[in-house]
Amino acid sequence: MTTNYGLIGLAVMGANLALNIADHGFPIAVYNRTYERTKEFLEGPAKDRPISGASTIQEFVQLIERPRRIIILVKAGPPVDAMLSQLKPYLEEGDVVVDGGNSFFQDTIRRDAEFQGTGIYFVGMGISGGEEGARHGPSLMPGGPRQAYTLLEPALTKIAAQVEDGPCVTYVGPHGAGHYVKMVHNGIEYGDMQLIAEAYDILRHALGLSAQEIAEIFAKWNEGKLNSFLIEITSKVLSYNDPDTGKPLVDLILDEAEQKGTGRWTTQNASELGIPVPTIDAAVWSRNISAMREERIKASKVLRGPAANSKSYDKQRLIDALEGALYASKVSSYAQGFALMRKASEVYGFELNLAELARIWKGGCIIRAQLLNTIQQAFKNDPNLSNLLLDPDFAEAVSSMNDDWRYVISVARELGIPCPAMSSSLDYYDAYRSERLPANLIQGLRDFFGAHTYKRIDKPGVFHTEWAEVTASAKQTGDEGGEDEPVNGK
Amino acid sequence: MTTNYGLIGLAVMGANLALNIADHGFPIAVYNRTYERTKEFLEGPAKDRPISGASTIQEFVQLIERPRRIIILVKAGPPVDAMLSQLKPYLEEGDVVVDGGNSFFQDTIRRDAEFQGTGIYFVGMGISGGEEGARHGPSLMPGGPRQAYTLLEPALTKIAAQVEDGPCVTYVGPHGAGHYVKMVHNGIEYGDMQLIAEAYDILRHALGLSAQEIAEIFAKWNEGKLNSFLIEITSKVLSYNDPDTGKPLVDLILDEAEQKGTGRWTTQNASELGIPVPTIDAAVWSRNISAMREERIKASKVLRGPAANSKSYDKQRLIDALEGALYASKVSSYAQGFALMRKASEVYGFELNLAELARIWKGGCIIRAQLLNTIQQAFKNDPNLSNLLLDPDFAEAVSSMNDDWRYVISVARELGIPCPAMSSSLDYYDAYRSERLPANLIQGLRDFFGAHTYKRIDKPGVFHTEWAEVTASAKQTGDEGGEDEPVNGK
Repeated sequence: MTTNYGLIGLAVMGANLALNIADHGFPIAVYNRTYERTKEFLEGPAKDRPISGASTIQEFVQLIERPRRIIILVKAGPPVDAMLSQLKPYLEEGDVVVDGGNSFFQDTIRRDAEFQGTGIYFVGMGISGGEEGARHGPSLMPGGPRQAYTLLEPALTKIAAQVEDGPCVTYVGPHGAGHYVKMVHNGIEYGDMQLIAEAYDILRHALGLSAQEIAEIFAKWNEGKLNSFLIEITSKVLSYNDPDTGKPLVDLILDEAEQKGTGRWTTQNASELGIPVPTIDAAVWSRNISAMREERIKASKVLRGPAANSKSYDKQRLIDALEGALYASKVSSYAQGFALMRKASEVYGFELNLAELARIWKGGCIIRAQLLNTIQQAFKNDPNLSNLLLDPDFAEAVSSMNDDWRYVISVARELGIPCPAMSSSLDYYDAYRSERLPANLIQGLRDFFGAHTYKRIDKPGVFHTEWAEVTASAKQTGDEGGEDEPVNGK
Repeated sequence: MTTNYGLIGLAVMGANLALNIADHGFPIAVYNRTYERTKEFLEGPAKDRPISGASTIQEFVQLIERPRRIIILVKAGPPVDAMLSQLKPYLEEGDVVVDGGNSFFQDTIRRDAEFQGTGIYFVGMGISGGEEGARHGPSLMPGGPRQAYTLLEPALTKIAAQVEDGPCVTYVGPHGAGHYVKMVHNGIEYGDMQLIAEAYDILRHALGLSAQEIAEIFAKWNEGKLNSFLIEITSKVLSYNDPDTGKPLVDLILDEAEQKGTGRWTTQNASELGIPVPTIDAAVWSRNISAMREERIKASKVLRGPAANSKSYDKQRLIDALEGALYASKVSSYAQGFALMRKASEVYGFELNLAELARIWKGGCIIRAQLLNTIQQAFKNDPNLSNLLLDPDFAEAVSSMNDDWRYVISVARELGIPCPAMSSSLDYYDAYRSERLPANLIQGLRDFFGAHTYKRIDKPGVFHTEWAEVTASAKQTGDEGGEDEPVNGK
């Protein structure tokens, strides 16, 4: 067997990806830390496929012809570095190593730098779609040297999910670009799930609907502008009855959401870059507060809700308004996520093509949705679009959903139902469309107590004011953040 | 002159702190990177005071008797490390070095570790109150070895701001504790300022009040439960007229808020520790979006607000409700900040005394407020209080402000006025008092697409469900965050 492809790490993702590659006509060599697993794989699913295995790294590398394309699928973090160190001595100029795990993009940038000058190409590739995606068509987000992508392209375009305008893979950009984009994908996914959860919560509490009734509403929404994988499976999850009790299973699931960190990474990085992503912020803290269940139960007994906590709402009006509110919130959230990627592209030199990213998310990944077509179109129409909300179609769509959006949030507020993601999405919209925000007062305060200076709207320059007579009690300066000299050049 | 005290870095903060120390009867030696500044200082403000200067580090250290107490006030970051390296060779066992800048607490933890085993004590001390505070009474947050604090205590208790129950200084805790607490202080300050800005914005847009009229409302609020330094100076800033134009200066200030990073650090760290701080999150992203002024102006022309954007509200009712909303939001924000410090105390071993922290913030610092008395009392009554909102007095106060809080936010929503901090504060309250959140649905979705498993409310254990027939289009697994093996142990 002659092959240019290799894969390291035969856990479910890796095994499935190897099968996917082999089934598309690319023979492949595989290696796993423990040979037992390799043996099982070769004698099991890999049997009768162009897959060969090795028991040592050296033997593994020798099975592959130059230029080698080796995909590593091991746990993110130190195991990736350990594997790269083991592998490096055997690689030769022109070979490509792909880290297909969920690595933090800064690690990918560092590793890329470590490979500079070796003649070996390093690629960080986000893979979305999990084990089934890996087997039958994931969304692939490879970042690294373009030459390396050219070598990988024939296989990647075959194994990726296919949508009407091509395979769900593209050259994302240099070094950490692929893993960065995968991180933001997951952050957006956090936002989507929290928005869905809030819509469910409002339907449950404001209208008293059963899980099955709510399932039907989501099924209906899935036929309209909200059409997406997550809305589809929400309906399925809600309509599933527990075989033991006959009750809707969702009602029996503990309300403590867990997380693995990519949502958090997204908000931390957004904060680093100064780009607001309030919907993802809300999704992350909502998961955190859900995990404080014991405290919540205690608090529910001492903290009162609104006085009027039972009202009757027009059922159909609220359901229809929720559809609009959910859509508008989602657009706001995607606008934030894409604005973050645009900024990251500048800061880290990722050279991202946002239309292409919308395209490769249309299949294979968790956030695939009809909405991504519109997003793709918006960035095709104007590749320099600074924010999705400025696209004429989105601007009109979201503007027209204003009243629905506000109505839904007011209902939630009236009933004391938390709606942080929906509400933050609206705050983003309202702040973004504000010609004037009250930040002038903040600047005034900062100049008062910290001589931090301010700018004016009526003339250029930087100003400082002695706001008040200095009194020992009132005058305080320089307090905010890290300065031991006042800014005004004293 | 005999002294045990030294100070390095004669920018305004350092010079003022040296004067403060000298004026309280502690002779002190000073050193600055450029001798010119030292000379100016000695011939200027330090004249006739027990202050001596040196032109080299070696000479400086020789002026001080053991055990030395040397305070460094240089720019945070590499300059601190550079100064420590220069200083270290001259120090002796039992000496104390204090970093009084706004260092990131993780740097302080690292530096503390670097001093371990040298016999020299390292202290990271947050100083709040800026240049005037440094001169006449700051709030001091020293963290490090307790023995070092004992050596510093005589001077620190004298130079700090004094409140009715003592000086605004306490032993905060080991290594990074002091700088950590200062960081959270600044995060809370961000929240306070954003809440004030939103109240101002609502008064301006919903009632059409002038800066002067709003100044009077804040002055009135300052006599009640909102009494605090920031409310006081808000009134002063709002009532200040620009000498050139005669107009209220605040109306001429550019609405782009700047920041120096401590608010961002707080939210990033909270996210790291899994503690929700949505009010500070909102304050940080609001500053970020304010800085996108050009885009906002563009967006204001294409994104429509609510249909009903002019309503008439009962003026006094709205003003009164705002006072309650602002107070409730502030309590929610402080509950978040103190919960964060409690968690950090566990995670980093800070051994924080939350009642003491409330006490030392009652004077000298920007967030000093009457509210801190109540907070101090709450933690005195129950040092293990897991959240301020569970304190009976706060629970009752905030519960009773429910309707005001919701009313104000509904007015803002009706008019399209962004209110992210107020709204997030309420969402925190509503989520925290939720016996059941919709996170059960999120767990169901995660298990559907990623086999992430879930727990149940009706029996112990960890479960996974095959939610639906696997179809190529619907089944996707393992997508969310970093795993290459499914969680259910396959």
